[in-house]
Amino acid sequence: MGSFGYRAWLQPAKTQLGFLPKLTGHRCFAFEEFAYGLESLFGKKPGDDGDYAISLEIDKGLPWEAYTLRGDLAGLRIAGGSEKGLLYGAYGLLARLCLGEPVETLNILEKPTVAHRVLNHWDNADGTIERGYAGKSIFFQGGRIGYDLPRLKDYARLLASIGINEISVNNVNVYPDSAKLITEEGLPDLAKVAEVFRPFGIRLIISVHFDSPVILGGLPTADPADPAVAKYWADAAKRVYQYIPDLAGFLMKADSEFRSGPAALGRTQDEGANIIARALAPFGGRIYWRCFIYNCKQDWRDTTTDRPKAAYNEFFPLDGKFDDNVILQVKHGPSDFQVREPNSPLLGAMTQTHQGLEFQITQEYTGQQKDLYATAVQWEEIFDTPVTDACMTRDLAGREVTAIVAVANTGTDANWTGHLLAQANLYAFGRMAWNPAQTAEQLTRDWVALTFGTDPAVKEPISAMLLESRWVYEKYNAPLGLGWMVNINHHYGPSPEGYEYMKWGTYHRATHTAIGVDRTTHGTEFTAQYHQYVRDLYESKKTCPEKLLLFFHRLPYTYKLKNGQTLLQYIYDTHFEGVEDVQRFITIWDSLQDKIPPEAHTSVQERLQLQLANAQEWRDVINNYFYRLTGIPDEKGRKVYG
Amino acid sequence: MGSFGYRAWLQPAKTQLGFLPKLTGHRCFAFEEFAYGLESLFGKKPGDDGDYAISLEIDKGLPWEAYTLRGDLAGLRIAGGSEKGLLYGAYGLLARLCLGEPVETLNILEKPTVAHRVLNHWDNADGTIERGYAGKSIFFQGGRIGYDLPRLKDYARLLASIGINEISVNNVNVYPDSAKLITEEGLPDLAKVAEVFRPFGIRLIISVHFDSPVILGGLPTADPADPAVAKYWADAAKRVYQYIPDLAGFLMKADSEFRSGPAALGRTQDEGANIIARALAPFGGRIYWRCFIYNCKQDWRDTTTDRPKAAYNEFFPLDGKFDDNVILQVKHGPSDFQVREPNSPLLGAMTQTHQGLEFQITQEYTGQQKDLYATAVQWEEIFDTPVTDACMTRDLAGREVTAIVAVANTGTDANWTGHLLAQANLYAFGRMAWNPAQTAEQLTRDWVALTFGTDPAVKEPISAMLLESRWVYEKYNAPLGLGWMVNINHHYGPSPEGYEYMKWGTYHRATHTAIGVDRTTHGTEFTAQYHQYVRDLYESKKTCPEKLLLFFHRLPYTYKLKNGQTLLQYIYDTHFEGVEDVQRFITIWDSLQDKIPPEAHTSVQERLQLQLANAQEWRDVINNYFYRLTGIPDEKGRKVYG
Repeated sequence: MGSFGYRAWLQPAKTQLGFLPKLTGHRCFAFEEFAYGLESLFGKKPGDDGDYAISLEIDKGLPWEAYTLRGDLAGLRIAGGSEKGLLYGAYGLLARLCLGEPVETLNILEKPTVAHRVLNHWDNADGTIERGYAGKSIFFQGGRIGYDLPRLKDYARLLASIGINEISVNNVNVYPDSAKLITEEGLPDLAKVAEVFRPFGIRLIISVHFDSPVILGGLPTADPADPAVAKYWADAAKRVYQYIPDLAGFLMKADSEFRSGPAALGRTQDEGANIIARALAPFGGRIYWRCFIYNCKQDWRDTTTDRPKAAYNEFFPLDGKFDDNVILQVKHGPSDFQVREPNSPLLGAMTQTHQGLEFQITQEYTGQQKDLYATAVQWEEIFDTPVTDACMTRDLAGREVTAIVAVANTGTDANWTGHLLAQANLYAFGRMAWNPAQTAEQLTRDWVALTFGTDPAVKEPISAMLLESRWVYEKYNAPLGLGWMVNINHHYGPSPEGYEYMKWGTYHRATHTAIGVDRTTHGTEFTAQYHQYVRDLYESKKTCPEKLLLFFHRLPYTYKLKNGQTLLQYIYDTHFEGVEDVQRFITIWDSLQDKIPPEAHTSVQERLQLQLANAQEWRDVINNYFYRLTGIPDEKGRKVYG
Repeated sequence: MGSFGYRAWLQPAKTQLGFLPKLTGHRCFAFEEFAYGLESLFGKKPGDDGDYAISLEIDKGLPWEAYTLRGDLAGLRIAGGSEKGLLYGAYGLLARLCLGEPVETLNILEKPTVAHRVLNHWDNADGTIERGYAGKSIFFQGGRIGYDLPRLKDYARLLASIGINEISVNNVNVYPDSAKLITEEGLPDLAKVAEVFRPFGIRLIISVHFDSPVILGGLPTADPADPAVAKYWADAAKRVYQYIPDLAGFLMKADSEFRSGPAALGRTQDEGANIIARALAPFGGRIYWRCFIYNCKQDWRDTTTDRPKAAYNEFFPLDGKFDDNVILQVKHGPSDFQVREPNSPLLGAMTQTHQGLEFQITQEYTGQQKDLYATAVQWEEIFDTPVTDACMTRDLAGREVTAIVAVANTGTDANWTGHLLAQANLYAFGRMAWNPAQTAEQLTRDWVALTFGTDPAVKEPISAMLLESRWVYEKYNAPLGLGWMVNINHHYGPSPEGYEYMKWGTYHRATHTAIGVDRTTHGTEFTAQYHQYVRDLYESKKTCPEKLLLFFHRLPYTYKLKNGQTLLQYIYDTHFEGVEDVQRFITIWDSLQDKIPPEAHTSVQERLQLQLANAQEWRDVINNYFYRLTGIPDEKGRKVYG
């Protein structure tokens, strides 16, 4: 199974199993996986000579993906609502055994809150990965499906072990090669991938091109109102399901960032989505329809158009018009996976429409797997954000939000994620998508313990670093919810005005006296898209969370924060602190040298040095930028380059 | 010979020839070309029934590339110092005939001031052109030499007709495919290109990779001190000259922008250049060694390192150490082909070293053949710049400056240069390289007349537009010699802080009160690299040319220019004017609709619209940037976006 990093959270247990297992019950894939897990994690092949019986059984009274674990001195029973529930039960028990939990007193019921726990890969047919920071594609090589079969199976196990049950393998930006995945040319190979993932309870999704009827079907238009287009999609669905009968469905990025879509043809998003939904419905398939629609050709002079308003404006009026097998896939924030932004006002606003909440595990704006950044901390904050006075975002899960989706951070790097500690983000995603009530702290601690062992001298400092990492990264990044002060295109490192005059609608409009965009009802009126309770919160500088202050308000640099600090001094302070924090991380990590496998220790050490250089660059550029603009020095007399 | 644009300045004459030519004298390629020219330009096939005798003769008393044209009522004599001089004489006479000059009174001696009049193509083996804005490569396709033979010959004629006598075909950034041009794999095809250009008196140059001994020769190092490396280059030269006996030599970009070179191996530039020069010397070849060396990984925090100082620092101490067949190729300015920068202090400083003065015809920073920009105007200014109190840059031509080189602006676009009017830049380059005393005004008028005819109603307005175009472009660009306020990488359009925190050493360091870099002896001491006379000129704000003010001085926005205007108001004014000027250009061009072939008229019209959009973007971004920084409004109350 390869090296330390490759095994991720399925490391050989650091503790001994206190018994010899004897397996009984329902023989199925879960049974095999459990036996395989016992052997590969504990070096124990279960057999008839075991002294502790573990039985696997189906319990039709449970939801199909749910399981129970019930142990006593005589033995333990894994019951699943189906073979799939049983599989999750098997992985669940193995993890608890690795964490050293005593079997005799286990009494667990686990059931997923969210039906669809989805990973989107942004992999291109040529093997590159858009926004990928961990090598090449696991799924594609040289223009077509291509993979290392044992690795693919190991990947499926990793994903299944954390409850992920759907994956798209090709980029939402569908190019000609991957467009063909729904044709006779692409399907035979893709069906083989589906075969690998099927036993693990993972169904494939195919990202499709809106213009498929034209570029593949030879039709003159992709207009959803054209009966020939409807027929094209119906035929395509039929063909696809012949090869992959359990396909979860299609994923579509339409009318977004230069891509075609219904709006470009004078149609509405529901018309575009429903025509495909109806093609998929007979086969039980769904269409995931992304809501990332905005004017990517904005004129920076135009101060009335406000990009964060775009998705709500486009989709909210359509609530109730989407077929039941359409899931609108909404990015968590109204901008684009920034370090700090409010939640999308679409979340929870559409009560008649299935929604998928989209996260980004791959660290596009959050350090690109060079910088440490525990995404789970951010997700927990997102779930902890109110939708109304009576509903938190977390409460939407399993209601309007029927899918939780994330862009994958994995590739062919030996350790899957480039930065070894970025494995924590994939792990936490799976478990948090299963149950958003789980805390970042618990999931982080579980991941650290499964990966590095339960020794508190290792577990505590690494967990603490991870849990602090989001705030540290935020400290040295664009301040107070501004976002976008990044180098264009590749999005790593600072460029305070990099996007200021571009067409992407991302402006902070800093002058020598003030900065930020007034998005209140006195400004762009973005706040009006929220429920009254949330609107009031953001509307006032006094109640707006300070970390979002410049997202919602335009303020002078001399504005006083709650602690009496000026806004400018806050910027200086956090940027100096961010670098000091990274230096502290390095000290902590260095101190763990004897407790971490050398290869793993060195690889993280190298990344921390890259992070330090990045943090210093951010600190110096951002501080320099604001010093140049304002002429106001740091109150504490630290070095601000002039 | 194809369409209007394709024929460039070799258009059929708009006027009739007043006689029937009868050709006599020395039968050679010049003779054929002259006859071909008479037929293709005037529709007259010369024959024995002609009524006016034109004789072609060799006159050994003339320099070999020189020619005389002497006419009277009885006939006209073209005399050349060689067959090559005769060829130039033939083209010279054809042009004068097209311009309507009376043959009977012609009495002309033309000889080139500069021996090497060189075009560098930055063409890659895959057919792309670095900084190319006129289609694909004329020389390469799909990883190797590939061309349309008739077109290649037409290109050779175009170049020869303006006196260009050397060309490199592959990019100075040599990649693996084009590195092979000096091997048995590449030479047979390249030799065929040489064959096409040979009769036109044009010799090839090959851009070579400094690491050729390693990547092609299999040696462990490219260290010029290693005898095996010397032997590699000697063998390579021998091989190359077997295929192309008249090769002009090699061209090298070493130790520049991530490319290997002698400095990277602890050697000096003369060691690197001489080892190759000695390999080429037995065959009469030269090495063109580029001086574009600077720290491209500068830390923006470092205010002592000043990129414009780099080339002089590197090369000046080596004066006298270069072999006689080394030509140091120096970009005209110390930055990088910016719209406005002073001349390189290297020019004329090295009295013991051959120098090539490098221009850029391709409009990398000057509008990318979307915006109108007559490069000749800039070149004339460059030649008009003093080197000492007793020597202008122009005076160096034919002395230290033995080559004038330019990066080509041509490609497979039907009209060669993308923007039809950009043909004027190629034309002017050839003629100005031949004789730098020629004025931009004369060359522009000649080009317009050859291209569009001598009708003053056409010639005057187009010439005026062209002659004004540099200043118009400069008006809406980065002001006062700052340069570099461009979008990164592609270099089109404004980005005021695009390069401000990057590693390229290009900073204006604008704050809310002041801008510019003090490069005087009180600052980075760049001015100390100039002769005392020039140094004094730039050293003082009072004597420094105002258009270069912010290149040499750091000044407050409230600084008063000679006309009493503040620096900031100058920026506002010029940026508003630039757009108005482009609008005026459009009006002028529109008025010529009936006088220009429709296809040509439309194509220029479209480019002018692109230019207008670009000028507006520059105006609004630059004005907005400075308004945000300073908070000082335009005195005239025009719209500055805030």
